[in-house]
Amino acid sequence: MIKEIKAEGLDPERFIAEKVEAIRAAVGEGLAINALSGGVDSSTVTMLGHRALGERLRTVFIENGLMREGEAEQVVTLFHKLGVPVQVVEAQDEFLAALRGITDPEEKREAVTQTFYKEVFGRLVRESGAKYLLQGTILTDVDETVAGIKRQHNVFEQLGIDPQEAFGYRILEPLINLRKAGVRMVGQALGLPADLFGRIPFPGPALAARVIGEATAERIERVRRATAVVERLLAGTEAFQYLAILHEDRVTGMHDGKRQFGGQIEVRCWDSVDARTAAPTRLPFELLEQLGREIPAEVPGIVSVTYNIACKPPSTIEAV
Amino acid sequence: MIKEIKAEGLDPERFIAEKVEAIRAAVGEGLAINALSGGVDSSTVTMLGHRALGERLRTVFIENGLMREGEAEQVVTLFHKLGVPVQVVEAQDEFLAALRGITDPEEKREAVTQTFYKEVFGRLVRESGAKYLLQGTILTDVDETVAGIKRQHNVFEQLGIDPQEAFGYRILEPLINLRKAGVRMVGQALGLPADLFGRIPFPGPALAARVIGEATAERIERVRRATAVVERLLAGTEAFQYLAILHEDRVTGMHDGKRQFGGQIEVRCWDSVDARTAAPTRLPFELLEQLGREIPAEVPGIVSVTYNIACKPPSTIEAV
Repeated sequence: MIKEIKAEGLDPERFIAEKVEAIRAAVGEGLAINALSGGVDSSTVTMLGHRALGERLRTVFIENGLMREGEAEQVVTLFHKLGVPVQVVEAQDEFLAALRGITDPEEKREAVTQTFYKEVFGRLVRESGAKYLLQGTILTDVDETVAGIKRQHNVFEQLGIDPQEAFGYRILEPLINLRKAGVRMVGQALGLPADLFGRIPFPGPALAARVIGEATAERIERVRRATAVVERLLAGTEAFQYLAILHEDRVTGMHDGKRQFGGQIEVRCWDSVDARTAAPTRLPFELLEQLGREIPAEVPGIVSVTYNIACKPPSTIEAV
Repeated sequence: MIKEIKAEGLDPERFIAEKVEAIRAAVGEGLAINALSGGVDSSTVTMLGHRALGERLRTVFIENGLMREGEAEQVVTLFHKLGVPVQVVEAQDEFLAALRGITDPEEKREAVTQTFYKEVFGRLVRESGAKYLLQGTILTDVDETVAGIKRQHNVFEQLGIDPQEAFGYRILEPLINLRKAGVRMVGQALGLPADLFGRIPFPGPALAARVIGEATAERIERVRRATAVVERLLAGTEAFQYLAILHEDRVTGMHDGKRQFGGQIEVRCWDSVDARTAAPTRLPFELLEQLGREIPAEVPGIVSVTYNIACKPPSTIEAV
């Protein structure tokens, strides 16, 4: 049972000082490595690790071919401004090869996880000589894994799997007692800019989790374009999260007055405090109609767009 | 090219008198038969045929196992009150057998059409001795077939297929010059009650057109229950049409705190004048949320509900 530090009782400066001390004590004179995704959790842990270890922390951004438009560039530029060097590792082909032919959501998640840890990141760790892996696991990840709701790739330790034996390195998780609100407070105190905290949550398997069925390069590119439209149009809402999902079902549409089968994009936009329960955001119909026009106009082969109207539960935030 | 009689220029009484005369002239001393679905078009043609031929018109309601809850009973009761006898023909097993294993929308439509004409209705026609088939084809059906948007099972004649040779009977289509608004005026003048005109359009292949993928008895029953919820909750809107679609894609849901894959229902509700173009109805969010709650509660295995937000075009009114 991991003890929760609630946002109300959190003193960010003291928390940072304690964690910097703990990281230094754990790593000693060694080297640490961490993978930055650009999300709030991994960005905060990068800043914390950099403050504790400076040059002895190596931060990598793994380009898995499943990220959103311009994502790698944005993340690297942001951390460059903060004085934190980030190395981009190109690994698109490895991830797409691992996903080939897989349609089951669990198997897709597993393929992304295994490629990330065993292949790409495991290799980087071994080559770097770093023995310590910094990771941005938060308490909500642990809760959900224990409850069996979804598999997190970053909670081996909590599940009783020894990461040393499994993947050859030791995991440090300085954010494990916090939930999202606490992480944001710590990240802000570490100097992360406000626009990073405006970023909505994004799943570990990235856009592979946003296609129902096989995650081919072409299908990933379709959902990437749809995601760009959704994020552009819904950025002004105060929603907790918004996303585009490419369905596998084919529906009828019209092109030049002729019947044509095509694809469907489902848009979800959630009001939520902590992702444990969530309700669809009551978006203005003008905005819904704009999504319904712009997505088929900008994404090849899409003839239909829907908006989620079910709550979590019985739904979940992501579709697969 | 069929000449359109527009609603503005239509004199319903004169139209009825002319068509009654034409039907009598065509049928002579013979027998006619027609299939009543309960929609506005087939109800109007039933009234017209009954006025022209009385006992010499035999009207059948074919129970294909693809109709909505209580539909056969409602239709028969209504026409009984109007003094028009309707024979219910049970043919569920034939339709479900014809649909077995078929997932392609065109092939499903064709299976329903072929079973209807060649098997069930063709047999009834041959056994009845009737040589004349009254049919409620309207101008919009012809437009769409010519444009290739969807295949109508009731326009062989316009496509240059000789129905005499194809199926052994001759088709009379007294409503062919009208569109929906005109048919409603004629139906009202023939004494059809107001609540029948409140009925929304329903496709020829019935609920088989409302499931993506195979139309099994179990999947038809699911979409039937979802349709009952949608029709109950949206009856008060002034929408042109509203419908439930059972998707084949599986999405993640939660049941008793555990992850569970389940099905998705898509709700469409359309504003339209004549179905040629259509826009999603701007339903109040309270109503959308009610759909999102009640459908998973009432339909086994459903964990997610969406609402269509694309226009026709590029979408179409039905999904398959």
